[in-house]
Amino acid sequence: MNNSDSRIFFIMGVSGVGKTTVGKLLAQNFNIPFFDGDDFHPEYNIKKMAGGHPLSDEDRLEWLKSLNKLAKDHAKESGCVIACSALKENYRNLLEDDLNQSPHWIYLEGSFDLISSRLKNRKGHYMPSNLLHSQFDTLEIPDNALTFNVENPAEEIVEMIVQKLNDQAEFGLIGLGVMGKSLCRNLASKGVKISMFNRHVPGKEENIASDFKQQHKELENALAFDELHKFVSSLQQPRKIFLMVNAGSAIDAVIEELAPLLSKNDIIIDGGNSHYEDTARRESLLSEKGLFFIGCGVSGGEEGALKGPSIMPGGDLQAYDLIKPYLEKIAARDKNDNACCTYIGKSGSGHFTKMLHNGIEYAEMQLLAEFYQIFKTKGNNPDEIAEILSKSDVDTQSYLLEITIDILKKREGNDWLIHKILDKAGNKGTGNWTTIASAQLGVPSTLIAGSLFARYLSAFKDDRDRVQNILPSELSAIEVSIDHILEAYQLARIINHIQGFKFLKEASETYKWSLNLSEIARIWTNGCIIRSELMEKLVDMLKSGDDLILHTEISSSIKKLKPALSKVVAKCIESNIAVPCLSEAINFLNGISQADSPANLIQAQRDYFGAHTYQRVDDKSGKFHHTEWLK
Amino acid sequence: MNNSDSRIFFIMGVSGVGKTTVGKLLAQNFNIPFFDGDDFHPEYNIKKMAGGHPLSDEDRLEWLKSLNKLAKDHAKESGCVIACSALKENYRNLLEDDLNQSPHWIYLEGSFDLISSRLKNRKGHYMPSNLLHSQFDTLEIPDNALTFNVENPAEEIVEMIVQKLNDQAEFGLIGLGVMGKSLCRNLASKGVKISMFNRHVPGKEENIASDFKQQHKELENALAFDELHKFVSSLQQPRKIFLMVNAGSAIDAVIEELAPLLSKNDIIIDGGNSHYEDTARRESLLSEKGLFFIGCGVSGGEEGALKGPSIMPGGDLQAYDLIKPYLEKIAARDKNDNACCTYIGKSGSGHFTKMLHNGIEYAEMQLLAEFYQIFKTKGNNPDEIAEILSKSDVDTQSYLLEITIDILKKREGNDWLIHKILDKAGNKGTGNWTTIASAQLGVPSTLIAGSLFARYLSAFKDDRDRVQNILPSELSAIEVSIDHILEAYQLARIINHIQGFKFLKEASETYKWSLNLSEIARIWTNGCIIRSELMEKLVDMLKSGDDLILHTEISSSIKKLKPALSKVVAKCIESNIAVPCLSEAINFLNGISQADSPANLIQAQRDYFGAHTYQRVDDKSGKFHHTEWLK
Repeated sequence: MNNSDSRIFFIMGVSGVGKTTVGKLLAQNFNIPFFDGDDFHPEYNIKKMAGGHPLSDEDRLEWLKSLNKLAKDHAKESGCVIACSALKENYRNLLEDDLNQSPHWIYLEGSFDLISSRLKNRKGHYMPSNLLHSQFDTLEIPDNALTFNVENPAEEIVEMIVQKLNDQAEFGLIGLGVMGKSLCRNLASKGVKISMFNRHVPGKEENIASDFKQQHKELENALAFDELHKFVSSLQQPRKIFLMVNAGSAIDAVIEELAPLLSKNDIIIDGGNSHYEDTARRESLLSEKGLFFIGCGVSGGEEGALKGPSIMPGGDLQAYDLIKPYLEKIAARDKNDNACCTYIGKSGSGHFTKMLHNGIEYAEMQLLAEFYQIFKTKGNNPDEIAEILSKSDVDTQSYLLEITIDILKKREGNDWLIHKILDKAGNKGTGNWTTIASAQLGVPSTLIAGSLFARYLSAFKDDRDRVQNILPSELSAIEVSIDHILEAYQLARIINHIQGFKFLKEASETYKWSLNLSEIARIWTNGCIIRSELMEKLVDMLKSGDDLILHTEISSSIKKLKPALSKVVAKCIESNIAVPCLSEAINFLNGISQADSPANLIQAQRDYFGAHTYQRVDDKSGKFHHTEWLK
Repeated sequence: MNNSDSRIFFIMGVSGVGKTTVGKLLAQNFNIPFFDGDDFHPEYNIKKMAGGHPLSDEDRLEWLKSLNKLAKDHAKESGCVIACSALKENYRNLLEDDLNQSPHWIYLEGSFDLISSRLKNRKGHYMPSNLLHSQFDTLEIPDNALTFNVENPAEEIVEMIVQKLNDQAEFGLIGLGVMGKSLCRNLASKGVKISMFNRHVPGKEENIASDFKQQHKELENALAFDELHKFVSSLQQPRKIFLMVNAGSAIDAVIEELAPLLSKNDIIIDGGNSHYEDTARRESLLSEKGLFFIGCGVSGGEEGALKGPSIMPGGDLQAYDLIKPYLEKIAARDKNDNACCTYIGKSGSGHFTKMLHNGIEYAEMQLLAEFYQIFKTKGNNPDEIAEILSKSDVDTQSYLLEITIDILKKREGNDWLIHKILDKAGNKGTGNWTTIASAQLGVPSTLIAGSLFARYLSAFKDDRDRVQNILPSELSAIEVSIDHILEAYQLARIINHIQGFKFLKEASETYKWSLNLSEIARIWTNGCIIRSELMEKLVDMLKSGDDLILHTEISSSIKKLKPALSKVVAKCIESNIAVPCLSEAINFLNGISQADSPANLIQAQRDYFGAHTYQRVDDKSGKFHHTEWLK
């Protein structure tokens, strides 16, 4: 495990650069031991160097391993400072191999002439200065070291190191769009020292990070960059970098640019709505480079990101443990004041869970649209509909219901704003992905699919115009009481959640994620778009079993509310009101409540025309049978 | 264009092998001109060879080009025979470059000693026999030539060539499963000389092709193989090879083995249910090798394949023209006796169209299952339901209805067989793919998705058992007349077809396939699973416009039948009968008939929580607006 007070420093550079002097002062400053790497050379190496012969890489192997062991041993204690030339990248890789923390690399640089004259003045050192040329030739300048020019006195260099370390940020963010900015302010307001980066696109995105820093008091200690390597150097190791860039190829582009600048065990967190299969691919790609990748769902929109979102991180558990304190600081709080953030599972499970959250959200929104339509048809104006909704039972309360009430009340001039909004619904992909995943995994998530297709149909506005002209149909008010309509709404939502959690359960089994559904419900009780009173109840129910429909409280709600739902759907259909999502709810309920379905006919048809075979009710072995139907 | 009576022969082999003698006799036999390649050497080459120096590849270039031109010129006439050593593969590629047909390669082989002694006895030839060694060293034995040993007299060799050409098959088939076998018998019974191949898997698949040939009289002239290279050699060029192997990686494996054995312009036809994106990928992969790939949907099951399937080929049009006569021979016939086969379009369009055919089929089957359930609930036994269905209006007639009637009548002992069949519906992927494509393309194909999810729900039999226990719900008979129920069935099918052809139209626009929907309907009027009286009517309707719902005949049917559909769905819902696909039909109809949908609320919600912006009804520019909802 990581000892957070432990620091390992490697001071590197050519001979004569002053590693020992700086190293000893630095060790003194932190009150940790100092080791001169040269003292650990085997006898053979010392003789070879004294004879004026440069060491071969083979000569160095034992020596580097012993220094690596030294670092590992002290990493368990309070740390140490080790001076070692470490001129090549692969020497440095050997030195930090398998360390439980990223060491600090301090690179001391100086010109050949300066170092050469220093070496000439040095006494009792076994390194002849004529080897210096070979050292400069060998030197591969490190990408990720803190670099100091040795023209400065050693005391000043140590001061600069300390200063630099104090200045380093704990947490970095890339991409300052709406969500990225909100998360920066959220982190900074919780006292986290952050580094912020936004790319520089001439004429389009200029000084985004520094301008943003100026605008908000809480960002006064934040660091702002538009050069990626400076941003990376500004971060404490192992670095923790939150990406808030557009899902898709932009993520791959950023990773490609970023990864070469990072050190082993650094953690990239993708906070966008990436597809879970992309996340799994990226995680395995980066793990080959020794980097961690956490696919992290974030829900709550702009406001949630600022005040506390619901956070769904998936990936390596040990990497998660390092970012957990930060994510928990910025997350929303549940009713027990616990963070609405939990480790979801391996690989793409975080982004899958976020995708499913959005799928549930799609259906919740479509249901509200259908009820809005039902009340409209009854002649209620938006204020009246808002009034009805705000008086509904506590069990129907949710964030989406609240904002719907706000929306319906919003006026523009003498009219309601809702009347001015074009009825073509957009989508950003997650509803689409959920429906596709549902088809791929063999799970009947009909409310999500139904609400996706309802959005698609809404987008065919011209078609609807044309068809209404030739097939005009009068929408009539349904003769059902407001209470029953609200009961129908309540049940449709319950079924949406039954399907949603069933989908998670099936995915968890297919992908072996061992999802904790109750924990997922818990982090969805605040901060996210689908938070609701119902979600609060589900947290406990899911503790006693993953199949919500089998839970007593759910089944008794179903018994109580079903007549209302059946009635509302039947009446809407007879009144020409399209209620695709509500219809999915009642049909799913009727389908799942029947042990015997008519799918035996489908199996017979498939066997008839395609010899696909069928199983029999009287053959429990599950064997497949074929009939010659025309014989 | 190809002149089908034209034949180009290249006679190849080392000097002294007898190319001129065989070539002249062969030319005489076919009454076409003979050319000795050596006569076309530039002066420079002749001198060089006479001086005992082998030619360089550079020396040969002009010469080979002039022979290639010679072949091209004669390919437009009746053909010709050209003798030319053509020892290397790349010489042969130059010789056949850009020819409008695959030439016949005749390779004359003989031992060094034999040829050497022949050369010594030869007079007046400018090739010194000491160059023979270099020729044998250079020789790359061709893969795809007809090969003859020159120990045989020239007259016999020519006889063997003629015999071999007469023996070659016109059309090859790989994969003798149920469908492959039926297609073989179909082709052979139409007088097509075929070659059949099935792999050899010890203990599992042995002598499949030759055993199959023995079983059927019509296959007496067919050639049977279990060695792929022999199968390939048995085919006339350009080869036409139908693959009937399982969709997926098996196709790629066969292609990998097959492609190296083929010659330029050979055509592979994939007759399985491959995914259209895989087909597009394979086509472009093979086109790099100069091969054609036709993705060819075949519908009709085992019986259709034997007696005449509906065939949906997509890919390169010129390649299609070469296989068209064969496909049209085996296809079903429409009512005007035209083949139920038409060129669908480029790339994966053939397989896409077959996929969509299966999607429509899914919904047709699910609708029948729902009506079976409705009648069952009314207390009708299978015979009675069969009786009702067989008396339905001519407009509801279809192949699937016919087989449903057969199925319902099928007895087993004292019971009906349908009662013994387990109600867990299987699926082989195409319904799944159609739903996914629908989600990807943004088209609301709700009946297809609904029937896919109904199959999925049927597969959760254990869940249904458990839920019925805690939520028992009595199915009651709906009080709707049989006539109205059948009207509802008729309309639901119309809507299924409206959605299906709309989906094709959208895909055609997205992928720029220029699909001819009327032609597609025509080839679906016979041979395939979704053939029906309705499909017959759609052929003409689609000639006057792709949007079926706007067609007068359709809209007047909708007006007439809609009350029955609304009533049946409403009553089913109130009677606890799950009718997901019927509900999709009425909800789609109600949705598409309303110019104004409640999706304005969804847009407002998206703007509220995610600043996703919205368009306005009073801003025809289509600009996107954002509101600060709480201000």
